[in-house]
Amino acid sequence: MAGHSEVLLRPKTTEEVSHILRYCNERNLAVCPQGGNTGLVGGSVPVFDEVILSTSLMNQVLTFDSISGILTCQAGCVLESLSQYVEEKDFIMPLDLGAKGSCHIGGNVATNAGGLRLLRYGSLRGTVLGLEVVLADGRVLNCLATLRKDNTGYDLKQLFIGSEGTLGVITAVSILCPRKPKAVNVAFLGCSSFQHLLETFQCCRGMLGEILSAFEFLDASCMKLVETHLKLTNPIRECDFYILIETAGSNATHDEEKLHNFLEEVMTSSLVTDGTVATEAAKIKALWSLRERVTEALTHDGYTYKYDISLPVEKIYDLVKDMRGHLGDMAKNVVGYGHVGDGNLHLNITSPSKDPALLAAIEPYVYEWTAEWKGSISAEHGLGLKKRNYIYYSKPSEAVALMGNIKAMLDPKGILNPYKTLPDQLH
Amino acid sequence: MAGHSEVLLRPKTTEEVSHILRYCNERNLAVCPQGGNTGLVGGSVPVFDEVILSTSLMNQVLTFDSISGILTCQAGCVLESLSQYVEEKDFIMPLDLGAKGSCHIGGNVATNAGGLRLLRYGSLRGTVLGLEVVLADGRVLNCLATLRKDNTGYDLKQLFIGSEGTLGVITAVSILCPRKPKAVNVAFLGCSSFQHLLETFQCCRGMLGEILSAFEFLDASCMKLVETHLKLTNPIRECDFYILIETAGSNATHDEEKLHNFLEEVMTSSLVTDGTVATEAAKIKALWSLRERVTEALTHDGYTYKYDISLPVEKIYDLVKDMRGHLGDMAKNVVGYGHVGDGNLHLNITSPSKDPALLAAIEPYVYEWTAEWKGSISAEHGLGLKKRNYIYYSKPSEAVALMGNIKAMLDPKGILNPYKTLPDQLH
Repeated sequence: MAGHSEVLLRPKTTEEVSHILRYCNERNLAVCPQGGNTGLVGGSVPVFDEVILSTSLMNQVLTFDSISGILTCQAGCVLESLSQYVEEKDFIMPLDLGAKGSCHIGGNVATNAGGLRLLRYGSLRGTVLGLEVVLADGRVLNCLATLRKDNTGYDLKQLFIGSEGTLGVITAVSILCPRKPKAVNVAFLGCSSFQHLLETFQCCRGMLGEILSAFEFLDASCMKLVETHLKLTNPIRECDFYILIETAGSNATHDEEKLHNFLEEVMTSSLVTDGTVATEAAKIKALWSLRERVTEALTHDGYTYKYDISLPVEKIYDLVKDMRGHLGDMAKNVVGYGHVGDGNLHLNITSPSKDPALLAAIEPYVYEWTAEWKGSISAEHGLGLKKRNYIYYSKPSEAVALMGNIKAMLDPKGILNPYKTLPDQLH
Repeated sequence: MAGHSEVLLRPKTTEEVSHILRYCNERNLAVCPQGGNTGLVGGSVPVFDEVILSTSLMNQVLTFDSISGILTCQAGCVLESLSQYVEEKDFIMPLDLGAKGSCHIGGNVATNAGGLRLLRYGSLRGTVLGLEVVLADGRVLNCLATLRKDNTGYDLKQLFIGSEGTLGVITAVSILCPRKPKAVNVAFLGCSSFQHLLETFQCCRGMLGEILSAFEFLDASCMKLVETHLKLTNPIRECDFYILIETAGSNATHDEEKLHNFLEEVMTSSLVTDGTVATEAAKIKALWSLRERVTEALTHDGYTYKYDISLPVEKIYDLVKDMRGHLGDMAKNVVGYGHVGDGNLHLNITSPSKDPALLAAIEPYVYEWTAEWKGSISAEHGLGLKKRNYIYYSKPSEAVALMGNIKAMLDPKGILNPYKTLPDQLH
């Protein structure tokens, strides 16, 4: 998506952000906060003539406590740089996602990014310990605590996590980093049905328990796309579903034994039809590529309609199958992949080019389907510009009205990231 | 603490709570929401003539999904009953605390209770997936989602977690329960200095890693109190500091091997001077009693001034030592115990009877000391009635002012739990 902004500001300090917002608020100038601009719902793209406030020069690590693993940094630090920084000190970032090479930690927090490690380390609502935020009128809210526990009043930072820059501009983040695991293993497995995949997941949670750090899946259509467009090689026999399991633990021997026992169990019981395991970094990376590069493969397949859905885990693939039946020949490909461990499906539908008739067949069908199963129409991507008017499929009108009240309280002139997150109609 | 209320209402349904609040709001009647009434800061105790709204009859489990481990229940369910309920289905509650036999899950969420499992399973801000809340005017806010991920708009439930009943009455909770571990071990160790205890903690995090589920401590004074007042037996040689380590994992052999290697390391390096290990339930319970029953022992020692402080973990015991020096003979006992893994100290000071001069020597000294090290003056207990006016030691005035705005937005007549959480002075 491209916006139409004529002004891009790149402050270096919180004070500069404060001055910019105070100035803009006094003059009723709209502001679009922007991190790495890697979002998929247009949250960081200006719609009309908003001033773009980029955090790209706010990229300093402020402190790192190597006893507690608590990192404090400016909002514009790139996630991958932070990962490298803390890994040298024997820690890891509690989140990881495909866009790590460009996304900013401030943007991650502003959008409550999920990603590949949520299953193990939980959401940013638990791992973010403190935030510094500049409010619409330029006031600086310093909640940059570095404590694991603090029950002194309302937890204001939660308001800004996942509010997509509509309530304030995050300028600094403190975050709890887990210890770097001593051993990492990846298994790439194939199943002949989604039911078998689910049973493999149940077995995996029991037998791998505390060392399980990812349980991801892609379907056969995704595999075909990465083979065709990216020339990647399927390391195992052709199957209907592929699973990527990662373990991360403190004792290599124990982890390998657990993984071995688990694999023996799922192979013997025929839940899994074929599989391969990696313990060296290069092969681990190659296996992860099959899952992480699905998004990239899709861009080569045509125009892509993207949906990021949470559902009870048993239901996630039914949506893909139903959508295939519903669209018939209208779509080029209907594919499903995502985070089984979190009940999070990435449903993607490709077409040779932008196709209003196809879109009309997908929406609101996909939202109605999700609402019927009490799912979320945006699991981890946020609402941004593109999905905001579908909020009522996942939230009752009392809740949306209250969100409107919060917005009015914190940004009475509505200068912060207008046309994002909240719907046009506040019932 | 005893209140002066003349009316106690015990609704059974959300609709009844809604009717009560609508009625009270229209007539400007103050309401004090009450769960198990086990709090330590007077948050659930009426101050004047508030109507007490007790959740004690709202004790039904609504749903439990044994694939995902997601429990949905009414707010008045007792934590221990819920634990028993989910344990039969091979899960555990993600929180555990001394008051489990009486505290209600709604109260746990309203106070963002920490407790003994936070180190492993994280805070309620991550494990609570949904809430149903009745607002001051009787409107029902249904955010009772059962999804691990949902980024559709602001996460309103976070406003109510830890707001101590001042913004709404929690009527139902959905919460993510971890699998019941297959093996649990407890080690009870002694150290000759707090420095050794900290080094033991560092070693423990490295060697026990993902199976570590608690790292608790008590000092020699606490041990003396449980021996004297409760007739418990110290299972190891007399030391200056005692550590309770719990592991919980999916493979008993692996866990015991990790624990064995760790113990060998800390004994050989003389970090730990003596220790004992338990794997059977009865002995595990006995070891936990030494830590869990410190609070009870204190009640036998006289009038107790209680402080619940978060600090950088290296500093937590300095406060106890400084306080001993500062108070000299004025106090009967100055003791420290708590959750090392969370940087959370419970500092308790006993006196033969209530003593205003002693109190004046403790406060604001304890708060100033904490503020100097950027700690929290209430780590997990909340502010309630007793600590609310000390909020400025841990939060800047911009933050407190914003809390006041949120209160005014959600409860404009101020009927919900007045005189709690927020200070008298909103700068």
